[in-house]
Amino acid sequence: MVTAPLEPKAGSRPAGPATLELTDLHASLTDPALGSMTFLNEIAQRFPEAISFAPGRPYEGFFETSLVHQYLERYERHLREDRRLGEDEVRRTFYQYGRTKGIVHELITRHLAVDEDIVADPEAIVVTVGCQEAMFLVLRALRTGPRDVLLAVSPTYVGITGAARLVDMPVLEVREGPHGIDPAHLEEVVLDARAQGLRPRACYLIPDFSNPSGVSIDVPARQALLDLAERLDLLLLEDNPYGYFTADGAPLPTLKSLDTRGRVVYLGSFAKTGLPGARVGYVLADQRVTAADGTSGLLADELSKLKSMLTVNTSPIAQAVIAGKLLTHDCALREANAREIALYRDNRERLLAGLAHHFPQDSGSGVTWNVPHGGFFIVVTVPFPADDALLEVSAREHGVLWTPMSHFGTGPGTECQLRLSLSSVTGPRIDEGLRRLAALIGRHRL
Amino acid sequence: MVTAPLEPKAGSRPAGPATLELTDLHASLTDPALGSMTFLNEIAQRFPEAISFAPGRPYEGFFETSLVHQYLERYERHLREDRRLGEDEVRRTFYQYGRTKGIVHELITRHLAVDEDIVADPEAIVVTVGCQEAMFLVLRALRTGPRDVLLAVSPTYVGITGAARLVDMPVLEVREGPHGIDPAHLEEVVLDARAQGLRPRACYLIPDFSNPSGVSIDVPARQALLDLAERLDLLLLEDNPYGYFTADGAPLPTLKSLDTRGRVVYLGSFAKTGLPGARVGYVLADQRVTAADGTSGLLADELSKLKSMLTVNTSPIAQAVIAGKLLTHDCALREANAREIALYRDNRERLLAGLAHHFPQDSGSGVTWNVPHGGFFIVVTVPFPADDALLEVSAREHGVLWTPMSHFGTGPGTECQLRLSLSSVTGPRIDEGLRRLAALIGRHRL
Repeated sequence: MVTAPLEPKAGSRPAGPATLELTDLHASLTDPALGSMTFLNEIAQRFPEAISFAPGRPYEGFFETSLVHQYLERYERHLREDRRLGEDEVRRTFYQYGRTKGIVHELITRHLAVDEDIVADPEAIVVTVGCQEAMFLVLRALRTGPRDVLLAVSPTYVGITGAARLVDMPVLEVREGPHGIDPAHLEEVVLDARAQGLRPRACYLIPDFSNPSGVSIDVPARQALLDLAERLDLLLLEDNPYGYFTADGAPLPTLKSLDTRGRVVYLGSFAKTGLPGARVGYVLADQRVTAADGTSGLLADELSKLKSMLTVNTSPIAQAVIAGKLLTHDCALREANAREIALYRDNRERLLAGLAHHFPQDSGSGVTWNVPHGGFFIVVTVPFPADDALLEVSAREHGVLWTPMSHFGTGPGTECQLRLSLSSVTGPRIDEGLRRLAALIGRHRL
Repeated sequence: MVTAPLEPKAGSRPAGPATLELTDLHASLTDPALGSMTFLNEIAQRFPEAISFAPGRPYEGFFETSLVHQYLERYERHLREDRRLGEDEVRRTFYQYGRTKGIVHELITRHLAVDEDIVADPEAIVVTVGCQEAMFLVLRALRTGPRDVLLAVSPTYVGITGAARLVDMPVLEVREGPHGIDPAHLEEVVLDARAQGLRPRACYLIPDFSNPSGVSIDVPARQALLDLAERLDLLLLEDNPYGYFTADGAPLPTLKSLDTRGRVVYLGSFAKTGLPGARVGYVLADQRVTAADGTSGLLADELSKLKSMLTVNTSPIAQAVIAGKLLTHDCALREANAREIALYRDNRERLLAGLAHHFPQDSGSGVTWNVPHGGFFIVVTVPFPADDALLEVSAREHGVLWTPMSHFGTGPGTECQLRLSLSSVTGPRIDEGLRRLAALIGRHRL
């Protein structure tokens, strides 16, 4: 690629701080995906007193700062007593640069066995700076050139779209129905893409209580999805931040626990089950990668090489905090989150009851909502556009925040939908928030 | 781009774990830059008993694990007493997702004023997961397409080359002399690149005790470099991990402290002055960025948008550890590192004395070395190739590790040079390591 030579602009600009044009920076910076995050953060900051059904943050009321110290001490004891490390090695573990793939991989393996019935090779785990870094690493590995595209269930988590933008990877949307990703549409999108010379590398989805829709995939559909992935020669990127928060019924098996053919890359998060402030996640990538010379290794090792040039390693202190929480609860995070699970269940019931109270069936309100069996989110459909402009009115005049579904995808109907998060607001504040939302909706319907 | 349609490979592969071809993963994974890091880590792991002059790790002997707790408590007290945060806000700070640009930016600003004479706008700082993430963010912002290239002093830090590979950004090498980057060559490389239609966006360098060469730039040359950057309309990426470790004389002013025209993006690290296990670094990016609609903001805010899709935010717990260390020492890291500075000075003197002992001047040994005024590294030139094969022999048969300079650049002479790090090995172990190195060299010269 050679274009006309550029002359150095010697003397052509005034003295003073250098100025860059936004158009001279990476295209992701003007992409709606990154703009969404900024807009939603800004509106939350501008209206701090509003009741917010917007953020997907976990409930913080059970946390005490002293727990950070307790967890660190618990992990220290583990190093000394279980792992028999000497004083020098313990100090080095906390102090120094560490293993790029992380140091708590064996505890994560135990947690996956206890909570998820997944038998994982500890060497196939890369501990990451939150699940977000895990997504980036996988997409960076899979995007080799302009043919490589990602598929994602739509509506989808903005973080996967954003990570794809950072590696210039197009995201093709796959429809979601009331029971999760539409397999017929998945196949159609893959075949269409291939017919255009594109190479669909993977499909991203959240099988349990998806963000933003709250929808889950049932077990037969999970099996069918794995078969389809095999038939289409496609990886599935399974993200599971919310699966622990079941409101009724037993948890469903993850895709990874059903995956006998290495089709699933499992994206793990401790942000909701552990401690968001640790910023620790992981990726379980046990696929084999074969080099031209016939040698082979784990996909996790390739992701680790990328990580060595991105963040070097995840802070061992942050990892120790999560490890301490795991050890405190015998690696059983479902049990460790019993209070949170109960709280979210109560919040969900209160929200659903409130919605039924304000918008009774057959009242002609035109307001409907789905009833997920757990997770953090409920989607409400209203008979008018629920866009950023309405959110601004809602925040300013009614003191209630929520998230327009249009930030998560372009599917039909999303423009009249809003996402309510049930993880942060509790008790009578839920009732008050719903009163404010009902006032907004009532005023708008007229 | 449309190529021939691909058929789905339905049924064309055996059951069993999915296999990927390395050639179907991102090109960086087969790049020598990433291979270097892997090779050097592996050889260190295979010979754990060797005396290692290889790693650029800080000395860990002064660290106690209890310091982590003390630092966390110190920051907690700061939040309560100086910042007057209530109990809920303190808990939230440690527990929740936090500000993408970080929470210790004001303390970093104080540190920059105290130690570096830099007056920084706290809003122009992005706290990152080590300096490595800061490098990635800057390169991701600057690489918009195939015309954008990076310049870097050669030999250079492998981390910048690796980060450039992750965004497919070519790195053009600029020669380094005994007093740092060669300005005439810098101008030549920029003009040549522009004549080829390329767009040099920035030049990366370590003005103080560079990695790997140990070389520093004197003050008049720093001023001239800033003038040249202005004339060439180029950003300078100043990385400063080693500037605190002066062996003799006063520290030199950083480029950023001399930068009146916003030409310098300052890459900050706490890995050597703070605590490597925290994995906290930062970037000071106070350049203005102008959008098409005429509005403008800070480059730091654009980097923050990228970070929100890469790691979301740097662990507030990890940030609190660094903040606690800063607060404990009134934000003066030069004072906080008095013991380390003295230790590295002693190590350097012992290393230089040992080299003079084993390879006396005029002895015809053909072995020479440079004498940096501080930092972690000394470069030794030998009269034969000091390559990976020799390193293997050195490790296996002589029990001493070092780093072939060929991993850091392709300049003339590097193939016969090796980098010795003086940060980890102390006292009589230095003498023993040098005896082993001398035995290797003696045997090889015959």
